[in-house]
Amino acid sequence: MAVTIRKIASDLNLAVSTVSKALRDSHEISSETKARVFEYAAKLDYLPNPYASSLKKRRSGNIAIIVPEVSDTFFSEAINGIEEVAQRMGYHVMIYLTHEDVEQEQSIIHNLRNGRVDGILISVAAGKGEITHLEELKIPLVFFDRVREDVMATRVVTNDYESGYNAVQHLVLQGCSRIAFLAPVGSLAIISNRMKGYRQALMDNGLDTDLRYVVQCSDNDRETMMILTDLLTSVRPDAIVGSVEKVTMQAYAACQELNISIPFDVKVIGFSHLQIAALLNPSLTTITQPAYEMGRAAATALFKKLSKKGAEIENEVIEIPSVLIERGSTLRESISYKV
Amino acid sequence: MAVTIRKIASDLNLAVSTVSKALRDSHEISSETKARVFEYAAKLDYLPNPYASSLKKRRSGNIAIIVPEVSDTFFSEAINGIEEVAQRMGYHVMIYLTHEDVEQEQSIIHNLRNGRVDGILISVAAGKGEITHLEELKIPLVFFDRVREDVMATRVVTNDYESGYNAVQHLVLQGCSRIAFLAPVGSLAIISNRMKGYRQALMDNGLDTDLRYVVQCSDNDRETMMILTDLLTSVRPDAIVGSVEKVTMQAYAACQELNISIPFDVKVIGFSHLQIAALLNPSLTTITQPAYEMGRAAATALFKKLSKKGAEIENEVIEIPSVLIERGSTLRESISYKV
Repeated sequence: MAVTIRKIASDLNLAVSTVSKALRDSHEISSETKARVFEYAAKLDYLPNPYASSLKKRRSGNIAIIVPEVSDTFFSEAINGIEEVAQRMGYHVMIYLTHEDVEQEQSIIHNLRNGRVDGILISVAAGKGEITHLEELKIPLVFFDRVREDVMATRVVTNDYESGYNAVQHLVLQGCSRIAFLAPVGSLAIISNRMKGYRQALMDNGLDTDLRYVVQCSDNDRETMMILTDLLTSVRPDAIVGSVEKVTMQAYAACQELNISIPFDVKVIGFSHLQIAALLNPSLTTITQPAYEMGRAAATALFKKLSKKGAEIENEVIEIPSVLIERGSTLRESISYKV
Repeated sequence: MAVTIRKIASDLNLAVSTVSKALRDSHEISSETKARVFEYAAKLDYLPNPYASSLKKRRSGNIAIIVPEVSDTFFSEAINGIEEVAQRMGYHVMIYLTHEDVEQEQSIIHNLRNGRVDGILISVAAGKGEITHLEELKIPLVFFDRVREDVMATRVVTNDYESGYNAVQHLVLQGCSRIAFLAPVGSLAIISNRMKGYRQALMDNGLDTDLRYVVQCSDNDRETMMILTDLLTSVRPDAIVGSVEKVTMQAYAACQELNISIPFDVKVIGFSHLQIAALLNPSLTTITQPAYEMGRAAATALFKKLSKKGAEIENEVIEIPSVLIERGSTLRESISYKV
C-alpha cells in the first residue's frame, strides 16, 4: 500500500482531516498530535504529493525565467543571481529559452498562465511582435535587462542611455571620430536607449551622425559577416560600439577574417559580461552590466510581489549602473607603440 | 465566477463527470456532447488546472536538467540541445544548478522525488559525496557528460580516454615532452578517464609521468592562481592539457599574469566548447565535445524511457566523439617564426 494520508490516519487511529491539518502544521491541531504524525510520516518516508498540495495552497512553488538564450554570459550570470534568491526562498526555478523568437515567447507564456508557476522573470526576445501575451498575464511579472516599456511591471535595468553615451566619450578620448554602432536583429528598448546615448554623444562632440554608421546585424551568421564586411571595407569606421556581446564577438571575427587590426585600424568597445574579455586578442574594452546583481534584484522584487497581494506593490524601475572597463581593444596608437 | 468544469456543466446542463470525461476525450462520451463541451469551453477561454490534471494522468509534463553551472559553454549548448527535443515533445524544462556542490545536488533530487518531474537529465557535481540520492530514484534518469559509472542509468558520453590520449599525441607532434594535466576540483569519472588517456599516451611516447605534472585546481580562484604559478615557475612544463574549460582559461590568465608566452614558452590545449576560442590571445586549440548533439541524445533517451515502462528499456552507453581543433596555442615554434 502506498503511503498516503489515509494510511497514516488509519494506522494512528486519527481522522484523515486531522492528519492532513497536522502535516500542514495547522494551529487547530495540538502539538502532541502533530509530533506523533510527523514522526510516523517520517518513519514511513511519506512524501506529500506536490500537485495535491498545490491545489490547496493555490501556489505551485515554481517561478519561471524566460530568456533569449543561456549562451550569452549576461544571461547565464543573471540566472545565477536569480537562482541564489529562489533557493533561499524555497522556490523551484523553471528556465525557458525563446531563441529571440517572439512567437515562441508567446507560446511559453500561454502555457504558464494556468498555475504552473507563481511568477515570471523575463528578458524579452528581440523580434517584433504582439505584447498582449504580457498584458493579459494574471500572475506577477518582473522584467530584467530587456524590458517592454509599454507593459506595466517592475523593471530591473541598467543605465543604457548613459552607457551608450560613455562608450562614445571613451572612444573620442582615444582619438576616434567615425564611430559605428552595431545593433542585434529586432527592436529592443535597451538597444534604442543605448543608441540614443551614442547619438547624443556624437552630437555633443560635433561628430558625424551619418546613418551608414548604424548597422543592424542579422540572425544569420553568414549574413552578419557580409554586413560587417561591407561596413568595415566601404564605410570604414575607426571605432565600433557593439551593443550586445554577440555582435561584438562577430565584429572581432570579421576583423580577424579581413586582417583589420584592433585597435590600430579600428577600436572596439562592447556591452559584455564575458569573464575572459581580458584573454581575447586584443583584450576587449567592455561595458559590463552587473548581471548577477540584476538577477538578484529582479528575483527579490518578484518575491516581494508574491508575498503580498500584487496590487498593493507599486511597479518600480530599479536601475543598477554598468561599469566601463578599459582594455586593449580601445588603446590609443601612440601609447600602444611604446608597449 | 471562475471558469471551472462545474460552471461548464451547469451552463450546459450536463453532469460534472460528463464534462470532465469529455474534456479528457473519453470514449464513454458521444462525439456530439464532446463537440458541445469543447466549443463552450473554448468560448469561455477555459484552462484546465495543470495540477488537477496531473493527478489524473500521473505525469507532470516537466523534466529536470541538473547541471553544475550554465556559464560553462558546454552546458549552455547541451541545454539548447535538450530544450529542442523537449519543446518538440511538449514538455516543460526545469533547470537546476548545483554549483559543483554534491549536497546541493542531493537536496535538489530529494525535492524532485515526489512527482514534480517525470524524468531527470543530469551532469553530476564534481565534489565527493554519497550517491544514494541517485540510486533510490524511482523516475527515469539519464546522465550526460559527467556520469556516475556506479549508478545504473543510460549514459551519454564522449570518448574521454581517447581525447586525453589524442591531446598528448598532438602536443608530442608539436615538439613537447614535459606535459602537464590540469584537473578541476573534485573527482569526476570524465576527468579520470581523460587523465588515463593522457598517462597512457605519455607512456607510449616514453615520456616522464612524474606526478608533479598532474595538478588539481581549487574552487577558489586565488588558490588556483597560486597552484598554477607554482606549476609554471617551478615544475616548468612545456605544454598543458586543460581537462575542462574553466581550468584552461585559468591557465591562460596565469600565463598572462606571469608574462609566459603561449605557445612559445608553453603550449595549451583545452577541453572546451567556447565559440570564441579562435578570438583568444592566442587562439585556443580545443578538444570540442559535440555538446548540442549530446544534449539531444540524452533527451531522446529520456523520452524513450518515458514513453514505455522504464524496466523494458535497457540502459545504454551512447558515445559521441569529440573533435580536436588545432589553433594558435599549440603552434610549433619553427612554424610560427615563419608567420
